[in-house]
Amino acid sequence: AAMAGCGWARAVRGLLLDVSGVLYDSGADGGVPIAGSAEAVRRIKASGLKLQLCTNETQATRENFVRKLRALGFDVSVAEVTAPAPAACRLLKERGLRPHLLVHDDLVPEFAEIDKTNPNCVVLGDAAENFTYANLNEAFRLLIGMEKPVLISLGKGRYYKETDGLKLDVGAYMKALEYACDVQAEVVGKPAKRFFESALAELGVPPEQAIMIGDDIVSDVGGAQQCGMRALQVRTGKYRPSDENHPEVKPDAYVNNLAEAVDIILQQL
Amino acid sequence: AAMAGCGWARAVRGLLLDVSGVLYDSGADGGVPIAGSAEAVRRIKASGLKLQLCTNETQATRENFVRKLRALGFDVSVAEVTAPAPAACRLLKERGLRPHLLVHDDLVPEFAEIDKTNPNCVVLGDAAENFTYANLNEAFRLLIGMEKPVLISLGKGRYYKETDGLKLDVGAYMKALEYACDVQAEVVGKPAKRFFESALAELGVPPEQAIMIGDDIVSDVGGAQQCGMRALQVRTGKYRPSDENHPEVKPDAYVNNLAEAVDIILQQL
Repeated sequence: AAMAGCGWARAVRGLLLDVSGVLYDSGADGGVPIAGSAEAVRRIKASGLKLQLCTNETQATRENFVRKLRALGFDVSVAEVTAPAPAACRLLKERGLRPHLLVHDDLVPEFAEIDKTNPNCVVLGDAAENFTYANLNEAFRLLIGMEKPVLISLGKGRYYKETDGLKLDVGAYMKALEYACDVQAEVVGKPAKRFFESALAELGVPPEQAIMIGDDIVSDVGGAQQCGMRALQVRTGKYRPSDENHPEVKPDAYVNNLAEAVDIILQQL
Repeated sequence: AAMAGCGWARAVRGLLLDVSGVLYDSGADGGVPIAGSAEAVRRIKASGLKLQLCTNETQATRENFVRKLRALGFDVSVAEVTAPAPAACRLLKERGLRPHLLVHDDLVPEFAEIDKTNPNCVVLGDAAENFTYANLNEAFRLLIGMEKPVLISLGKGRYYKETDGLKLDVGAYMKALEYACDVQAEVVGKPAKRFFESALAELGVPPEQAIMIGDDIVSDVGGAQQCGMRALQVRTGKYRPSDENHPEVKPDAYVNNLAEAVDIILQQL
């Protein structure tokens, strides 16, 4: 019933999955898997469908992120993760930018090969506990002191859910710095079109044969649809009933969780 | 020369003065007076012009703020200070709102008579060191949990200058919460028209006979002009040369500092 009339799902050859709120609920304790999601990932792989995790996760390197997911029971590998930090590194190299990083400590190794001396831009990630008054002022002062401030934000999420409650996401801090410096951030990560295109390239499937499954109505669903993909919203993670009245974005279908999405997609094949 | 053609200043009967960046540069050490400003305040009073401090200061009660200014050599009294917290208290009482406060510790006594149980709004001030990750998340969670989030911001300044450098002001944090909760803050303080009107009422002078003197091109100069006042920008405090190319706001004149403004205004009388 949730996906009645979803005959289009027959064309699917690959799935892009958001991670936090779809596979698991994150938290200081490492998080907890969402019921049925680990089994759903196994069923996707057994079906022959391709799978790529498309995440705005910036609290850990891909290696540590995958280690955590595997410990939670998910059969995934580093090559199956598309994340903002590597995309930002490509952009920094292309443009000869030297970042000041305001990111989570555990993300810093992703930038190991990037020259960070005498910064000419600020890279903002979900710094969590590193979002201190002092660190925000430092990033602000560097930006406002640049002739042409360059602010690169690893995502623009408003908030996310951890096991102990909702948390402000990187987008909120991005808006603070944008306003203070009168600058527009360049967003790397969902919902940037270029980021979804990278994920599709790694998936090896064109947009019309891919489905995005996420809990964020704007960043996951809206972003994927802008790239020509179908997109499902799960009713887990940060999903809120009011999302179903969103003025601009309407998912191709709602599903209760990833397990239900996989049930229905596999039935169509 | 700075105020050539400022014959309009002859009509002046009262001055509204911004404080931080005009009278003194603030800082963790209590701040330092701007050269000539204490003498300028004395000369204003000796001239018979009325004077009101119109400040977005929210790091201290008016009593403590005046105590600090007097220690720095300024002859001012509590009645001569128009500040956002008392204006916010009036608004909270009018509308039966019970605030959760995210403000500086030293401002809390201004809200002593306000019921703060079971909050149905968030009041945001320049909380400085209280702008921690935990406190921002707490304010966010309260707001997002309200059926109709009400965010009241004591000012919307982008940044200010302290003796140890520029600091993000309350406006940046307001933008973060606005974005995260998809809500528009109600601003109490400059540049809100109602706030300038309160200051003029306390000054006892109509807008066309008042001059605002400030260092903030938007909040001080633009806000006062919107109320029908003339406004001067001082080249002290947060003033930056690029302000002189502001796309929307043009002061009635620039002056190097408050002392020069007072020199010229008194010459016109």
